Amino acid sequence: MRLSPIGTRMAGLSGLRSIMEDVASSIAGTAEEDWLNLSIGNPARIPQAEVMWREALAQTVAEDFERAGGRYGPSRGSTVLVEAVVAYFNRTYGWDLTPEHVVVGPGSQMVCFAAAALFCGPEPDGMRRLVLPMVPDYTGYQGLCMHEDGIAGVAPRIALEGEHRFSYSLDLDALRQRDDIGMLLISSPGNPTGRALTQDDLDGLIQVAEDRDVPLVIDHAYGAPFPRIGEVHVDPVRHRNVVNCFSASKAGLPGERIGFAIGDPEYVGALAAFLSNSVLHAPQLPQAAVAAVLRDGRMDEVARDAITPYYRGKKEFMDELLAERLPSDLNWRVQSVVGGMFSWVWIDHPWFDDTELYRRLKEQRVFIVPGRHFFVDAPSVPLPNGHATRCFRMSLSAPEKTMIDGVSRVAAVLREMRAEADEALRHGANGPGPDRAAARR
Amino acid sequence: MRLSPIGTRMAGLSGLRSIMEDVASSIAGTAEEDWLNLSIGNPARIPQAEVMWREALAQTVAEDFERAGGRYGPSRGSTVLVEAVVAYFNRTYGWDLTPEHVVVGPGSQMVCFAAAALFCGPEPDGMRRLVLPMVPDYTGYQGLCMHEDGIAGVAPRIALEGEHRFSYSLDLDALRQRDDIGMLLISSPGNPTGRALTQDDLDGLIQVAEDRDVPLVIDHAYGAPFPRIGEVHVDPVRHRNVVNCFSASKAGLPGERIGFAIGDPEYVGALAAFLSNSVLHAPQLPQAAVAAVLRDGRMDEVARDAITPYYRGKKEFMDELLAERLPSDLNWRVQSVVGGMFSWVWIDHPWFDDTELYRRLKEQRVFIVPGRHFFVDAPSVPLPNGHATRCFRMSLSAPEKTMIDGVSRVAAVLREMRAEADEALRHGANGPGPDRAAARR
Repeated sequence: MRLSPIGTRMAGLSGLRSIMEDVASSIAGTAEEDWLNLSIGNPARIPQAEVMWREALAQTVAEDFERAGGRYGPSRGSTVLVEAVVAYFNRTYGWDLTPEHVVVGPGSQMVCFAAAALFCGPEPDGMRRLVLPMVPDYTGYQGLCMHEDGIAGVAPRIALEGEHRFSYSLDLDALRQRDDIGMLLISSPGNPTGRALTQDDLDGLIQVAEDRDVPLVIDHAYGAPFPRIGEVHVDPVRHRNVVNCFSASKAGLPGERIGFAIGDPEYVGALAAFLSNSVLHAPQLPQAAVAAVLRDGRMDEVARDAITPYYRGKKEFMDELLAERLPSDLNWRVQSVVGGMFSWVWIDHPWFDDTELYRRLKEQRVFIVPGRHFFVDAPSVPLPNGHATRCFRMSLSAPEKTMIDGVSRVAAVLREMRAEADEALRHGANGPGPDRAAARR
Repeated sequence: MRLSPIGTRMAGLSGLRSIMEDVASSIAGTAEEDWLNLSIGNPARIPQAEVMWREALAQTVAEDFERAGGRYGPSRGSTVLVEAVVAYFNRTYGWDLTPEHVVVGPGSQMVCFAAAALFCGPEPDGMRRLVLPMVPDYTGYQGLCMHEDGIAGVAPRIALEGEHRFSYSLDLDALRQRDDIGMLLISSPGNPTGRALTQDDLDGLIQVAEDRDVPLVIDHAYGAPFPRIGEVHVDPVRHRNVVNCFSASKAGLPGERIGFAIGDPEYVGALAAFLSNSVLHAPQLPQAAVAAVLRDGRMDEVARDAITPYYRGKKEFMDELLAERLPSDLNWRVQSVVGGMFSWVWIDHPWFDDTELYRRLKEQRVFIVPGRHFFVDAPSVPLPNGHATRCFRMSLSAPEKTMIDGVSRVAAVLREMRAEADEALRHGANGPGPDRAAARR
């Protein structure tokens, strides 16, 4: 099999996809209950959301089959969804959208893939990269870029907060120094951290996008106006350089792949053409279902009354659990946010390694996600003190019982790893003593 | 907006997409009945097929929501569909497939797009092209290739049959002379012609694919084992270099975008990785519905009892209509096939131009599809006597009344075009007389 250069890159799986395959193949053929799975990216099962989607889908199969399932649809999106999006956003934010501002895709990941293909890649004057203004960010972004060395991430600033919290922030100065930007892409609230853009962040990113005349693609999959899983500091904005991406996935419909982008007609038209040439269009029956719940207010209602409170509660629960179970004399810190789908933990010790934690926990039938994959797989992201290999992600979608037992085992493995490091240190094994002692804190 | 080189190509629409947009925008806001639309690519509304899909989808929404719509799925395809495909093909053709031989995508077009990206593109030793072994073929293939000058088509051999029929055949000699093949792609039965591969065709194509070690992708969207809209001469084959693509679209589910490919694990694994990186996975509820109708035999039953007879009947009806309505002293010919979704007509006169026919018919509220777009938009396809601009496609999905009235108006416009050419000739207008007289036959 002879692959093209693009093929060579795209026929591989990013690090996290390999992990997820490992999780899936480990679980396959066993009882799901045998595992404590804190690696899941699926939204939690929230009854109100399930009822909403089931009803909307059943109704659309019954009423819209002939004009939806039984026909090809427009590549820009079904008229019914495009019009519902226009009305919904104009109502919610006082915008003045027309259908030319909207494009629907089979998931917002495909929309982002199309954008990366349209705006990034090798050019006579050098590589124009897909630049993530702050890592860690969604690991799936790494697969979007079809070109070798076509993606780059900017390391965050890290601020410690109290004993066991910390927060990232954008290093806009470092971003401004890059001269290779083809497109900016950021999730807000972010996966895995839950961190959301502030007004200053947004202003700074827009300024860079304007200066370079590149699109700033903001992925609101966890944010406003729905599903509001994570806390949001600023509403989405309309700006010539901003493409806002939204998704029905985290609101409870990941399997049916509906996402959409809102932006200037020039960008949106290019995205629609790309989708037309590649995937043709998004599935139509779920488009009709999304249109229905946007139109009648159910999406807003379910987000407000069920989804947001659910994740806030789970986040508080996880924070209490971590405080209760992790050794208090361990230098562990959790990214400081309200809500979100994940808990992002940093173990700031040289003896800690995220993949080693993954390996040991898997032996005990627990899955977490090693953190390194959320930093771009590139040597271009230098982080102080090996930060990128000292974090891991745990899902808040898991049932409370799973969280309790899972975190207890995480704590036990951390104690074990620390004890082994101490032991090695006492025996002066593996290298010069003084450095290691200093490094251990 | 600064597009990448790939973006510049992919932000444009192929010729036919522009036509289809013209059709859609012309019809929008008017009553559909006001138009005689013979341009449609949608499958016909066949009651048995509609009932099958409605029931299967309703059942899957009711029973599978939690494990399908509410969860992310595997990029290779839902386990339920992959297993149903394996069992169905092993049962139907005596194959020995395992899940590693199958990949599901959101439509077979996306699978073909992934294949073209994986196997075609610029390389240090020159461009490796997506080669269509015989044009005319599906116009959507032209959008699959992301690289300028990255696609090529081989002109067919043309054989006249009787007074008003003709048939294309593969020019394997011309294909063998190409040294730029990255991948071969052909639809069988073909869109627009309905022509299906013979055993000799297949043997010849496989030989070329083997010699060059490239994939031969065969798109069975209209063929065997379902929906059998067009006549099929050979069953799909298993071969190391062959990737067989299948689709639920023409069996009546185009809106939900389910297609799949069967091939060697090496090819299939690369396709699954590409899908994982780009579109993530196909929508899951329709995958469950397709699995259900493959498993319980409904798909075979509906194809055999309803779909195949429907299109055979419509094709015969169209053939009779053409014989009855088109001027018998006109040198018109129709591609000679049984069944199929389209009628492909060749008007072998120098005064005929396919886009002029389109323009005049549109004024009379009739839509056909000009033929030129099914020949690759490249100067590399030289055809005798301007053949590529002297064909047009009419859909057999339209109701009989639409076909009758539409073909009558086509006949009237052809008479009008011929009369104008005669008139111009008599007055010696537009160029030297003798050539034009000779050309007119």
